[in-house]
Amino acid sequence: MQVHESQGTHTPDRLRVDGERLWNSLMQLAQIGATEKGGVCRLALTELDRIARDQFVSWAKQIGCTVRVDAIGNIFARRAGLRDDLPPVMTGSHIDTQPTGGKFDGNYGVLAGLEVLRTLADANVRTLAPLEVAVWTNEEGSRFVPVMMGSGVFAGAFTLEHALEQRDRDGISVRDALAAIGYVGENTRPHTVGAYFEAHIEQGPVLEAHDKTVGIVQGALGQRWYDVTVHGMEAHAGPTPMELRRDALLVAADLIHAVNRIALDHAPHGRGTVGWVDVHPNSRNVIPGRVKLTADLRAADDATLTAMDSALREACSAASANAGITVDIEPVVYFAPQPFAAELVAAVKKGADMLGFSSMDVISGAGHDAVYLARVAPAAMIFVPCKDGISHNEIEDARADHLEAGCNVLLHAMLKAAQTVRTTPVSEASSI
Amino acid sequence: MQVHESQGTHTPDRLRVDGERLWNSLMQLAQIGATEKGGVCRLALTELDRIARDQFVSWAKQIGCTVRVDAIGNIFARRAGLRDDLPPVMTGSHIDTQPTGGKFDGNYGVLAGLEVLRTLADANVRTLAPLEVAVWTNEEGSRFVPVMMGSGVFAGAFTLEHALEQRDRDGISVRDALAAIGYVGENTRPHTVGAYFEAHIEQGPVLEAHDKTVGIVQGALGQRWYDVTVHGMEAHAGPTPMELRRDALLVAADLIHAVNRIALDHAPHGRGTVGWVDVHPNSRNVIPGRVKLTADLRAADDATLTAMDSALREACSAASANAGITVDIEPVVYFAPQPFAAELVAAVKKGADMLGFSSMDVISGAGHDAVYLARVAPAAMIFVPCKDGISHNEIEDARADHLEAGCNVLLHAMLKAAQTVRTTPVSEASSI
Repeated sequence: MQVHESQGTHTPDRLRVDGERLWNSLMQLAQIGATEKGGVCRLALTELDRIARDQFVSWAKQIGCTVRVDAIGNIFARRAGLRDDLPPVMTGSHIDTQPTGGKFDGNYGVLAGLEVLRTLADANVRTLAPLEVAVWTNEEGSRFVPVMMGSGVFAGAFTLEHALEQRDRDGISVRDALAAIGYVGENTRPHTVGAYFEAHIEQGPVLEAHDKTVGIVQGALGQRWYDVTVHGMEAHAGPTPMELRRDALLVAADLIHAVNRIALDHAPHGRGTVGWVDVHPNSRNVIPGRVKLTADLRAADDATLTAMDSALREACSAASANAGITVDIEPVVYFAPQPFAAELVAAVKKGADMLGFSSMDVISGAGHDAVYLARVAPAAMIFVPCKDGISHNEIEDARADHLEAGCNVLLHAMLKAAQTVRTTPVSEASSI
Repeated sequence: MQVHESQGTHTPDRLRVDGERLWNSLMQLAQIGATEKGGVCRLALTELDRIARDQFVSWAKQIGCTVRVDAIGNIFARRAGLRDDLPPVMTGSHIDTQPTGGKFDGNYGVLAGLEVLRTLADANVRTLAPLEVAVWTNEEGSRFVPVMMGSGVFAGAFTLEHALEQRDRDGISVRDALAAIGYVGENTRPHTVGAYFEAHIEQGPVLEAHDKTVGIVQGALGQRWYDVTVHGMEAHAGPTPMELRRDALLVAADLIHAVNRIALDHAPHGRGTVGWVDVHPNSRNVIPGRVKLTADLRAADDATLTAMDSALREACSAASANAGITVDIEPVVYFAPQPFAAELVAAVKKGADMLGFSSMDVISGAGHDAVYLARVAPAAMIFVPCKDGISHNEIEDARADHLEAGCNVLLHAMLKAAQTVRTTPVSEASSI
């Protein structure tokens, strides 16, 4: 990507976002659905979501953006390019939260995008390609599944109809909830995206552990999720000698270890988690007759994920070989590993280096809207540290200087991708 | 114990209970609180309990017994002895059930005692010592804790006041529940018991596995129960690499294995069970931050139980040595191992041999009223097989011939302990 440098006083390389403005906008948005513990509860397509969406739209219009909404409620705030027929360079994320969510997950990506546009507006920097900030509908999946609904429809992961038909626990459909908050837009084909960047808090402990400011995200781990059921025989803990037991929990403990070992055997990116366990009858002096558990395996490439899948199935077969024990395993979710676009990843790295921020290559262990976008456009992500790696929690926290740093990296990665052509001093803005 | 043989036509050694009558009484009692699945739900001190108590009292009075109730509602049906000043030879059990209980647990011990008295009445066999059948209040502990409440008060394991003050989930006290069903008796000191026998289904799989009809119970395992909590750090399954995790469930799996290993290390009677597990937050893609589990250790002697206690504490300490993990262990229950009286155990064995039943020495893994009685009187138990070792379940089942066999063993053990002195033909019963 060739970059045309400006003749004006504000060269793009010297451009910096306003970290205080970014922070203030984050804090202002966090008031909408603020919880007592300092977090945010703003479920997708609720009245609080509408208020936050309206706030974003208002901010975007204040800096001259045009705003479009699509049929699943995704919002696109667009800053025209000099060559407005070019596919846009897009950034974005989501502003819905978990029921006990924080201020930064998603919101940071949206408001970092807004801050980039505000900075360019202030500096009268024009780009060849148009820029867009997307607010994707229902990334969290707390009220409606599937998760990453808006970006999933945009990327064709599932159909618009499928998404609109989903219902929350009260039986309200996505279709009706969208209409209720006034965010049903045009049902047009998704537009072509030239490049997609997403800034996000890491939601993990790696950057903090390595004392780095910016994570250069190489891609996202593939995921395979399973439901596993161990069938044994419920019996009294007292009268049943050890040798006559068919203890489902003891076999479940083997499988918990197996899931961990499988991940360690596929280092450095292999991950394995048993997060949910249900013991029946779950009584202090009864040998468990049935244990259900989940398994979550993740890997950076499909060959590794397939090998981990085989190892888990072998562990379940081996456990079934115990007398009187049967183990059922049922796959429930598959997300393919998703590498990001090499040239965009390089642009993020170059931006971080140019700005003098410490950085390291990381891989996203979680799903993000960018992972779906990567199916239809070159995509990349920028991570910044979050305190103690904690997210999806009201105590989720991040440092203002880190958020500012990530936003500056986003600014310069977008400028390069959109081929900046001209800057003028602020005073000449009206003549542009 | 010397036995005086009769001069009549019915010698005690030839006496046999009426297995069909025993079975019919069991089935009749099981109608009170019968469940659709063939079980019984008759919680302690409910109206159904009253109806069943009244039935027992009516049956006992029909064969000339006197009936006395004590202050915790225990019922004693007494058949006078020729030397009525001697301490009684007692048998008994309970007729309260679990919410999803069966027809035999407890009820068998009470009705086997009744069948013994009926058989002696029919045969006009008199004993030197009086005989008593006890119905102990609230053995199951499903509605009110502590379990084995009536026998516990009788044996001084806890006070009458403590028991009367306990309340169920609706706030109703034992005191009020007893009054409501009309079973508040005399508040007198427990009487001296000469010998106590209890017939019971095994509630375990050992007799069935060894194809034996009668279990000669040597005593009851001691028990130590614990609450264990593993504290780790809740984190996202995706973004958290294996080496930065503090997975409480992985440590809990170690402890589940440790509890099992500790029992195996203390064979043949050592038992170790984790029956209850609570995972927090118990979400598929979140590394568990806290896991609570119970541990139940049992052994036949206190030295072994103490060694097992030490081993469990060491396992918890070792687990705490993991970086970022702490393990708390809290003892919640201690029951001392309880050997039964050698001479009564021998009488049970002798009875089984004399009657030609296959038998084996067993140890009770569970608590029974007999375990408390053994604190204040010579005591022993007789086990008969139950189908698949299943109890505390509506499908609990036992064979009529096994129940009859156990009842005949009870009959002869009681006769020997009570020193039978005379029998007369049935036709002369009215002249006795």
